[in-house]
Parts: sequence; C-alpha cells; structure tokens
Amino acid sequence: MSGFGFECTHTDGRARRGRLHTDHGVIETPVFMPVGTQATVKGLTPEQIRATGASMILANTYHLYLRPGHERIARLGGLHRFSTWDGAMLTDSGGFQVFSLGDLREIDDDGVSFRSHLDGSPHRFTPEHAMDVQAALGADVVMAFDECPALPAADEDVARAVDRTVAWARRCRDHFGPRRRHEAGHQQALFGIVQGGLVASERARCAEALIELDLPGYAIGGLSVGESKDDMHRTSRSTAALLPADRPRYLMGVGYPEDIVAAVAGGVDMFDCVLPTRLARHGTLLTEAGRIHLRNARFAEDERPPDPACDCPVCRRFSRAYLRHLVVAGELLGMILGTVHNVTHYQRLMREIRDAIEAGRFEQLADRIGTRPTRAPAEA
Amino acid sequence: MSGFGFECTHTDGRARRGRLHTDHGVIETPVFMPVGTQATVKGLTPEQIRATGASMILANTYHLYLRPGHERIARLGGLHRFSTWDGAMLTDSGGFQVFSLGDLREIDDDGVSFRSHLDGSPHRFTPEHAMDVQAALGADVVMAFDECPALPAADEDVARAVDRTVAWARRCRDHFGPRRRHEAGHQQALFGIVQGGLVASERARCAEALIELDLPGYAIGGLSVGESKDDMHRTSRSTAALLPADRPRYLMGVGYPEDIVAAVAGGVDMFDCVLPTRLARHGTLLTEAGRIHLRNARFAEDERPPDPACDCPVCRRFSRAYLRHLVVAGELLGMILGTVHNVTHYQRLMREIRDAIEAGRFEQLADRIGTRPTRAPAEA
Repeated sequence: MSGFGFECTHTDGRARRGRLHTDHGVIETPVFMPVGTQATVKGLTPEQIRATGASMILANTYHLYLRPGHERIARLGGLHRFSTWDGAMLTDSGGFQVFSLGDLREIDDDGVSFRSHLDGSPHRFTPEHAMDVQAALGADVVMAFDECPALPAADEDVARAVDRTVAWARRCRDHFGPRRRHEAGHQQALFGIVQGGLVASERARCAEALIELDLPGYAIGGLSVGESKDDMHRTSRSTAALLPADRPRYLMGVGYPEDIVAAVAGGVDMFDCVLPTRLARHGTLLTEAGRIHLRNARFAEDERPPDPACDCPVCRRFSRAYLRHLVVAGELLGMILGTVHNVTHYQRLMREIRDAIEAGRFEQLADRIGTRPTRAPAEA
Repeated sequence: MSGFGFECTHTDGRARRGRLHTDHGVIETPVFMPVGTQATVKGLTPEQIRATGASMILANTYHLYLRPGHERIARLGGLHRFSTWDGAMLTDSGGFQVFSLGDLREIDDDGVSFRSHLDGSPHRFTPEHAMDVQAALGADVVMAFDECPALPAADEDVARAVDRTVAWARRCRDHFGPRRRHEAGHQQALFGIVQGGLVASERARCAEALIELDLPGYAIGGLSVGESKDDMHRTSRSTAALLPADRPRYLMGVGYPEDIVAAVAGGVDMFDCVLPTRLARHGTLLTEAGRIHLRNARFAEDERPPDPACDCPVCRRFSRAYLRHLVVAGELLGMILGTVHNVTHYQRLMREIRDAIEAGRFEQLADRIGTRPTRAPAEA
C-alpha cells in the first residue's frame, strides 16, 4: 500500500484530467462519488455500485458516529471491511450535518454541541473528536472539521466561520496529521475545506491559510446552501483558482450535471451529491434528453427504455412502463433500478468529461451539457 | 413451444420427484415459488431471483388487476414481457385476496363484488372474469376461481364453499379451456383448487368433482388460514392422496420449511409462500440453525455470515453486524440482502428435498427438517 497521491495528466483550459492514487484503487478524475450516507448507497449492492462505473463513494460521519457508532465500526475493521466496499471512500467531517440540525446545535470557538436527530441524546464534536471518529471509520480521504454557514449570511458571520474553519483545520492536522495509516494498512489523507461564502476576499483568506497547512487535498465547501446558480458557479471557479495545482480539488455536495461541468471548467476534480440517488427514489430519472418523472401517466404503456441513449443494465432490460408500475405501486425494485440508472448516468457524464479533456474538446462538451435541457421537451 | 406437462420421475414413499414442463422452462419438483405480488419479488432483480435457484414465481391477480390493470399488461405483451422474468409464472385467481377483504366484499353464487383496497372503487369477479384477467396476464399456470372460507368454519359454510368452488371451476374450464395459448405463443394451463376446510368428506367430494373436469393440475386450497399445524398437515396429506398421480399437486400459501416437508411427504409437488420474503423485510433470516432476528443486539459485532452453512451471495460476503446495521438503520439494502438469503435458503431446501427423494432417503431428511429448531438455541 503506497498511500494517497494525485497527478494531473491533462489540462484543457482550466479543466483538469488526473488520477487520485489511493490504497483502494486508482481514481480517474474528474470523479463523481455516489453518496452512501449510512455505509450503503441506498438500495445497491457493492457489485451494483461497481457496475455503475463508480470507484469512490462518500459516507457521512455524523450518521455513522450515531449509528452504528465509530468505535463499533473500528472494532469491525473499519468502513471498508464493514460494508465490503473495496473501492475508495471519503468521509465528510460531520460538520455540515451537525450545522444543518438548526435548533438542535450550538457552536462555540472550540466545537459544536448537538442533539441526535434519532433520540435527542447530547453529543459534542470538536476538531479533534471529528478526526478521531474519521480515523475510526477509516476512509481513504477524511475532511477537516469546518463551519459552514447557510447562505445568505452576514459578512461578519462569514468571516467568523472562516476564522474557525482555519483554526479548526490546524487542530485537525495537528491531531490527525496530514496523512495517517489506518490499522487495516491503508493510508488516510486529510483534506482542508475552504469556506468564505460568496465573499471573494474571505475565500482567498481561507484558502491562503489552509494552503500553509500543506494538506493532501482541498475542498470548496459552503456552496449549494441557498445561493443562486450564478453565485455558485462563480465562487467555485474563483476558489478553485486559488488552490495549488498539485493537489486535488473537491467541490462538496454539488450537483446537477451542468453544475459539475461548470466546476470542472474551473479546475475542480472531485464531486459528490445525493441528487442521482435521491431523485431515483422519488421516481425521477436522468436521461440524455432531460429528466423524466416516472409517475407521469404518459409512461404507463411506454415500452421504450428509460433512456434510449443509455447502456446501463436497467435501460438494456426494462421498459418505462414497468418502471412506472413499480414506482406507482411503491415497490422497492423501482427505487433500486432508478438508482442504478441515475448513478450510471452520472458516471457516464464523468467519463465523457474525462475523455473530452484528454482530447482537448472540453469546451464543446461543456457547451452541449450546459445547454442540455434539464427537462425533456414533453415534460415542460 | 410445446405446452404444459408433468412427469413424476421418482417416488419415495408418497413423496414425488418430478418435472413440470412449461414454455418458460422445465421446473424441477417439488418446487417453491417465491411470491411476486405486483409483478416483482420485492427488492430483487430478475437476475437475483434466478441466482437464488428459483425457476417459477407467483404473481397476484387481484393486485395486478387493480394496478396497473390486466388489459394494460396484455397490451404490453403479458406478465413475462412486462416484468422481463423469463422463467415460469403462476397467477392465483384473485379469490383469496378478494375474500380476505372482509367487509369490503360480498359473495353470491355467481361471483364476488368487492371494493378496491386502494381507492374503494367497486369491482366484480366472476369465474369468467377471473379467467379473462388471467388470460390477459399470461402466466404459465392459472388458477380456477374458488371460494376459500376462513377457518374455523361451520360445516354448512364449508359445504356451500365446495358447491361454489366446483360450479365455478366448471365455468372457468368452460370459459378458458383446460389449456389455452397466449398471444405471446406459450401455453397457459388451468389448475383446479380443492376446498373443503378440515372436513374429510367435503375435501373428497370437491376433489372428485374437480377430477371429472380433467384439469392439467390440482391445488389444495383453504389451508394456512387459521387452523392448527396438525390439522394443516393432516388435511394436506389426505387431500393430496385423493388427487390423480399424473397431475401436479400444489399446496397454496404454505409455508414454513417443516410444513413443506410434511406436505411433500404426502405427495405435494408445488408450493408458494410470502414467508421468506416477508420475514426478510422484517429483519428475520432463516438459517440451518433456525431463525435469527437481526435486530437482536447480540449481532451488533458478530462478524460471522448470516448462515455459516449457506453459500448464497449474501452469506459469502456480508457479516451479521453489517446486515444488522442496515436493518436497524431502515436501509433498503438490508431488506434486499435478507430477501436474497431467505429465498436462496428455501431453494436449497427444495433441492435437498429433490435429492433426498431421488436417493430414496427422504424420510431421513424429513426427520432432520421436522426436528430442526425453528429458532436458534440462543434465540429461545
């Protein structure tokens, strides 16, 4: 096991084609990580996840800390062994979920006290504790504990969040190290998270301070939290430009295909989002011609595959009519098949992005994706 | 496509080893059919169903008639094409579900009027209509429309149900024929259902009248509806003995492994039951050492496979600890993996039964299964 590393193999404008080296495989970037909140990408077996083309998944520290517990997962050999997912994994810091608890949490300069959404029990995360939890979980990439203010936010709140995020990132690095070897033998690498809301000077101040910590990778946090698409695209692009070229850049929690393409254009390498999995569970499929809502009566006798342009196991076998029946009847298989399709759709998008960067034709792809209808014409 | 047939290849006592020939494959008997109520075995893809060893599944006429509708399924080419299950299928007549509606239905000599459990809309099934619906669905085996009284029942109610069941079976055969070719090319075979509650003379009267109709197969209905295990075993055994040796015998809706073994000992060839799939969705797994309830805290750090004696894809890969986490966290994957395991468990039981009959050692197997604990010792 040779540890974590990143290489950029091609550039096309500011878009980058590269590789993350992890002890659980080489990850071709730009990469999209499906979300497996509770150590499972909802409804998919590890084989099915692999078959979508996914090589790296995300799990949520907050959820796993509460249930089944990080110490329990550590005793069971860490997340990889526990879930049997042998690809790469990333855990978030728990911060975003904790801050999302609203009235159930209280932030101070040392950390966050919160109550469990499951049973109301009291808990506290500090930077050190967030690192201990992630060390126990054992993902290949772990995230520094940060403060993520909801937008819109007052400038002073943004500045205070940057102060804390920087101070906490230092404490995370001091406690965990930039890299750490997990008991199972693989290396865990710490990423810092750039906050700063939509304030360019705060983003710059945060990035500069984190770069001093010389971490193995950097994330752009605090976006897709209430701002406009334009603000999101502009900020992800300008923040990516502040980050060192030899480290991977990860835009957290984003997003729609057009958001991903916009961020890749700005030099981002890594993405995660619940969108493909959550939409699937609600009966919405992503296709090359836009989104289709399977509950729509016009699919009731539609024998075409969900996406005629897709070669996933679902589109090769099942009709829209059958999938619609499953969704309307509330059947598990509807959620499962939708998830397989949507995650495969995202993985194909990422492959197209990587191929386009290698071939020096990313701009054409970006034009196509950027203008791709988000709804099929007939759905409008 | 050569149509439906049955051959008995081995006997051991009254137990029979045989083959159902269908236009969707040869079915080795005794066979267990997983239940796919809404044209899906809940949570499993057709490939996963096949991988359990299942060759024939059951779908429920009542549910599919209501949603998505039998005429719609007919326009989509029938159940096989609609669901993409290319193995054999059986549909029940809808009668059992309709009678289970209680206050929502009213029976007369001509049929049953009922209200949909989905939206309260009024509907009526007659023998002819039940056949039309099943002809549209297109299963390889279809069931005559019968009256199934809940037990305990007064003798006069049992006798009246037998009268109706016989009269309705004749109407079903007159309307559908004993066999019928579906538009997709395959043959559909009609089975009669022997009712008669726990009254031996009524069972005999019903069987005799149905045998006169010379149907391709016969089912034993009206059991597992409130009677004792002893009554169920005695009645299934005595009823099987009344049925012609050259036709398959199907015990409907039964049951636990020991019930299946007891019925095979009496000469039954076919079974269906929601037990393995429903138990799995509630976190209960069937193992060679008895049932285990995954919610039990003692499995929280148990790294053993669900059933060390099982070679299913779940037991080869996942720990009890991970499955327990999925079940406790309400994750879809817990239901899916539990279903794969439980259905495989049943299919292995059926293979053991078939092998034992071929080898002339069914009695030893029956002794072992009959005395197999239904709960693991530590669960008691």
